[in-house]
Amino acid sequence: MSETLQPGAVIGILGGGQLGRMLSVAASRLGLRCHVYDPGANPPAGHVAETVTTAPWDDEAALRAFADSVDVITYEFENIPTATLDLLESLKPVRPGRRALAVSQDRLTEKDFLTGLGLKTAPYRDVPDRAALDAALAEIGTPAILKTRRLGYDGKGQARIMEPAQAGAALDEMGGAEAILEGFVDFTHEVSVIAARGVTGEVACYDPGENVHRDGILRTTTLPARLAPGQHMDAVLLAGKILNALDYVGVMGVELFVTPRGLIVNEIAPRVHNSGHWTQAGCTVDQFEQHIRAVAGWPLGNGQRYADVVMENLIGDDVDRVPELARAADVQIHLYGKGAARPGRKMGHVNRIVRG
Amino acid sequence: MSETLQPGAVIGILGGGQLGRMLSVAASRLGLRCHVYDPGANPPAGHVAETVTTAPWDDEAALRAFADSVDVITYEFENIPTATLDLLESLKPVRPGRRALAVSQDRLTEKDFLTGLGLKTAPYRDVPDRAALDAALAEIGTPAILKTRRLGYDGKGQARIMEPAQAGAALDEMGGAEAILEGFVDFTHEVSVIAARGVTGEVACYDPGENVHRDGILRTTTLPARLAPGQHMDAVLLAGKILNALDYVGVMGVELFVTPRGLIVNEIAPRVHNSGHWTQAGCTVDQFEQHIRAVAGWPLGNGQRYADVVMENLIGDDVDRVPELARAADVQIHLYGKGAARPGRKMGHVNRIVRG
Repeated sequence: MSETLQPGAVIGILGGGQLGRMLSVAASRLGLRCHVYDPGANPPAGHVAETVTTAPWDDEAALRAFADSVDVITYEFENIPTATLDLLESLKPVRPGRRALAVSQDRLTEKDFLTGLGLKTAPYRDVPDRAALDAALAEIGTPAILKTRRLGYDGKGQARIMEPAQAGAALDEMGGAEAILEGFVDFTHEVSVIAARGVTGEVACYDPGENVHRDGILRTTTLPARLAPGQHMDAVLLAGKILNALDYVGVMGVELFVTPRGLIVNEIAPRVHNSGHWTQAGCTVDQFEQHIRAVAGWPLGNGQRYADVVMENLIGDDVDRVPELARAADVQIHLYGKGAARPGRKMGHVNRIVRG
Repeated sequence: MSETLQPGAVIGILGGGQLGRMLSVAASRLGLRCHVYDPGANPPAGHVAETVTTAPWDDEAALRAFADSVDVITYEFENIPTATLDLLESLKPVRPGRRALAVSQDRLTEKDFLTGLGLKTAPYRDVPDRAALDAALAEIGTPAILKTRRLGYDGKGQARIMEPAQAGAALDEMGGAEAILEGFVDFTHEVSVIAARGVTGEVACYDPGENVHRDGILRTTTLPARLAPGQHMDAVLLAGKILNALDYVGVMGVELFVTPRGLIVNEIAPRVHNSGHWTQAGCTVDQFEQHIRAVAGWPLGNGQRYADVVMENLIGDDVDRVPELARAADVQIHLYGKGAARPGRKMGHVNRIVRG
């Protein structure tokens, strides 16, 4: 393929949730078409994509047909099965590339990668077995948190250990999955940097946003984040360091803990990120278009922030507040076209714009 | 149907061009789904709509199936055949309603309606035949312009008459279609007001934009428009008067000539309007979402303007400038997903944002 996708070219998106939905809309603004691949029926992205394939991740014929029909492949979530990626990668460019996925799919690899770059993370130890867990607890101390190395998200696959006697129960909760132990970080708040890198290596970062979670799910992101001027620069520089080290192409979410001793990297997500939804309200080019620009080989857009914004997720029956929110001035509504508003399900988000 | 469409409801859009495309994207933000009806294959709106029907305007079975599948029907252009509307209207609500279409589909009806409201228009006369044309020219004088009463757009179906001797040739150009004669208006510039009215009768207007045409096609819209403060208010009030008189639901484009003796209404378009594309860059809620909110029975959104904007259409091979435009700061790109860049074809637009 040519390095720069021309209007009419097709972007394949693995995963048809709300991130794929907003990516598809952004692609349409650039004259690009989207083909969404998702194992589930009626994915939210399908409402705004030209083509949808509904097939499991191990359906080789469907994957080949999908790859044949697109010019480049990207994804909205990082836990795509390895065999799926092996096949797709042999057929069409996959962006961001495998290195970013390998790093972000495994908490141990991720921590090793980050500390290898000289960045700070929570203290951590590989925990292949009970003996290793006891040793790790002795070194890191309690409280600590045991996490599966793979497939953890939104607080699942995690067990807190408040005292060493809880080690056995915590390990049982991992269900035999490989795990790591992480020490607690004494942070004041969490921020994230949404960073992008283009095919030519240019890097652009949005202003850091300040995140508040509840029950392990992001609730709000507030711009600007509380950061000392030096920390703002630190956050942007470390994000750039990560993207360059991975020869990354696309948008990445980098979650950081703010502590009195500096910034500590919590985790990275090789995709557009919930904490970047505010960019739809405060920037000329939002994170979704930025990601499409990057994977399509376009120059990155202007991510400068022009307004203060509070992004709030609408979780479960929060969506019942939409009639009231629709009447509020300076509230931008984004609903995801999902059916039932189950508890914990992300149904949409709003951006409250605070103009200076 | 309930007055307020709930998430998951379906909006039927007649016409699948760029306006339908951007309406469909706006609907997705509100959790609504779209079904586009267009006689042409591969309409631009089809790339971002859940369902597309490709069928002619007189295919009764296709129209019935379309109406069955949607909750409300709207349109992106005003020249829908009468029989099509008769059928659809008997099956589902059509918004904006028939009165607005009847007025805007016929230049004579439109002028009679506007002058009946006490608004100023260009001088005009009904021209059923040659004798009427000669009489009209004697009254209105030259230069004047002969226009077909129906189906005229972008400068087609029009003949200038610089002196009375050209009357016969001008009438021949009408090809037997009913026509009206309009006197020239000595205006300094043209502005348009994008106005919206909801189902409960609330009215909201965007700031007037200043339009520049070339070869009968809109080239740029600039915000703010050059208007005296009193004229700004006049423009907004007369737009509201028009919408109220039509019991209108949806967004309307009202084109006005600015003259030393006040504002003169050029024409109205009962739909989202090219001169309102700037709202994508300068407002919390753009004209497309505003139209969807109105036809879906939602409260109108905040159309206050937060930036100066210059909207420029990309016509024909203007689209070759996209690589350069993609590198410019504060330029928002909107491409329509059309194939060949034929001369005069609207391929996209850009919004240049000028922040204060």
